[in-house]
Amino acid sequence: MENEMTRLEMVRALVGEVAELAPGEVWLAGAGPGDPALLTVQLLAGLAQADAVVHDALIDPRVLAMARPEALLVPAGKRGGRPSADQADIIARLIALAGAGHRVLRLKGGDTYVFGRGAEEALALAAAGISFRIVPGLTAGLAGPALAGIPTTMRGVNQAVILATGHPAGPAVPGDAPEPDWAALARLGQTIVIYMASRTIGRIAAAMIAGGADPATPAAAIAAASTARARVAVTTLSGIAEAVAAMPGADPKIVVIGAVVAVRAELLALADQVRK
Amino acid sequence: MENEMTRLEMVRALVGEVAELAPGEVWLAGAGPGDPALLTVQLLAGLAQADAVVHDALIDPRVLAMARPEALLVPAGKRGGRPSADQADIIARLIALAGAGHRVLRLKGGDTYVFGRGAEEALALAAAGISFRIVPGLTAGLAGPALAGIPTTMRGVNQAVILATGHPAGPAVPGDAPEPDWAALARLGQTIVIYMASRTIGRIAAAMIAGGADPATPAAAIAAASTARARVAVTTLSGIAEAVAAMPGADPKIVVIGAVVAVRAELLALADQVRK
Repeated sequence: MENEMTRLEMVRALVGEVAELAPGEVWLAGAGPGDPALLTVQLLAGLAQADAVVHDALIDPRVLAMARPEALLVPAGKRGGRPSADQADIIARLIALAGAGHRVLRLKGGDTYVFGRGAEEALALAAAGISFRIVPGLTAGLAGPALAGIPTTMRGVNQAVILATGHPAGPAVPGDAPEPDWAALARLGQTIVIYMASRTIGRIAAAMIAGGADPATPAAAIAAASTARARVAVTTLSGIAEAVAAMPGADPKIVVIGAVVAVRAELLALADQVRK
Repeated sequence: MENEMTRLEMVRALVGEVAELAPGEVWLAGAGPGDPALLTVQLLAGLAQADAVVHDALIDPRVLAMARPEALLVPAGKRGGRPSADQADIIARLIALAGAGHRVLRLKGGDTYVFGRGAEEALALAAAGISFRIVPGLTAGLAGPALAGIPTTMRGVNQAVILATGHPAGPAVPGDAPEPDWAALARLGQTIVIYMASRTIGRIAAAMIAGGADPATPAAAIAAASTARARVAVTTLSGIAEAVAAMPGADPKIVVIGAVVAVRAELLALADQVRK
């Protein structure tokens, strides 16, 4: 047993030196879309060092299983429509744990800073005098389509990708920025990726079509990207709300709108031809 | 020595089963912005298995050093303004290597499908009957700002991030999509991230301002994100071209435009206050 390497030693053997998660420090880390193979090495190092892991509800159990056996696991995530820890409570918990000298890993789905309220947590930690580090993760809005056979950019097709949240703005969420101008977004003719759109996609697609978007624009919905439960539905802008509604409710969903969605069928057709 | 673990064994010990890179197969993989700690575990598994690594010019040497000692390293990348392998040659090389039964890792900077011509390579491999897998990587347009203290989204500030390429469109690059409508993008009032803008940022910023964007909109340029040579310059939309021009020429640069850029100064000021 004396030759057995610790997880941290293995990470170091693989990539050389990695950052130290110091006592009293917080890493604001993105765990990617779900598949543990899509974690960054830096995040593995964080899991191998953390005394406390404060994690969103949707973090894959296989990822949480990589924490140290003695680490405190603190569920802190919001989950659409279910009771959840308040953001202020999450921040207070991070500050308390770090203040007590723990090495704290704040584990968020996807990327730390893409629609994850990571910026609020970073500002609160800075104001409390707690040192922190950002550990970026793969965002489901780019990795999800890629794994589903949909490139978010393609030469000759688009020169921009718009990542937008479909989470309802307005009085329902005090402090939110004004909702994106969906019709104006659609008129750009670029790829549009919408996160957290389950409840709003019908209204969003209607706004796009009313603003001049072609109802036949290719569109896809992707649920539970990178996991064994992953589902892909390819349709058009006019059919996207129905396609999203037909998917299992609890899994996070990503919607992709734009000509690049058609590449998936092209790849599948080529693969079929070769098989014949 | 008999207890020494191979790199692949270490990856498996860390995350459980990882995909096998089969003889004759190609992985189209993103190596992220540069720092080896920001690689995905899946990519480490690819490096530990590949017989041939066909890599962009800008791949960090520390990443290439993780390939198997006996692996064939094939430089294939384009680098702004320098002679480079033609895209058709790269594709032909991938097909030839896979056709000869090699396990091939195609290593691109950033993410496979974000402005990396990965879609063209995927379609060509499918047409040639070669099986392939997409291994997403962190894109510099999100990870670069995050590591520089700039969240690309923040509640109350923006609800979308636009990733766009500043690579010149038009007859200079046959087959390219029409250039984004920069003025329309700026009018959305969301975060805009521009890749490969060194030569075009002056024209792009002017188009945005002519279209009604506030010249005082916060803007930042980030060079060599995640590496020891990383540089950050914070300015405004009217000053961004000058800031980019003042950065070392060879390093890839990312431009961020939008109110979120101001969060960096806020984080630094809070940290300073606490230090006093």
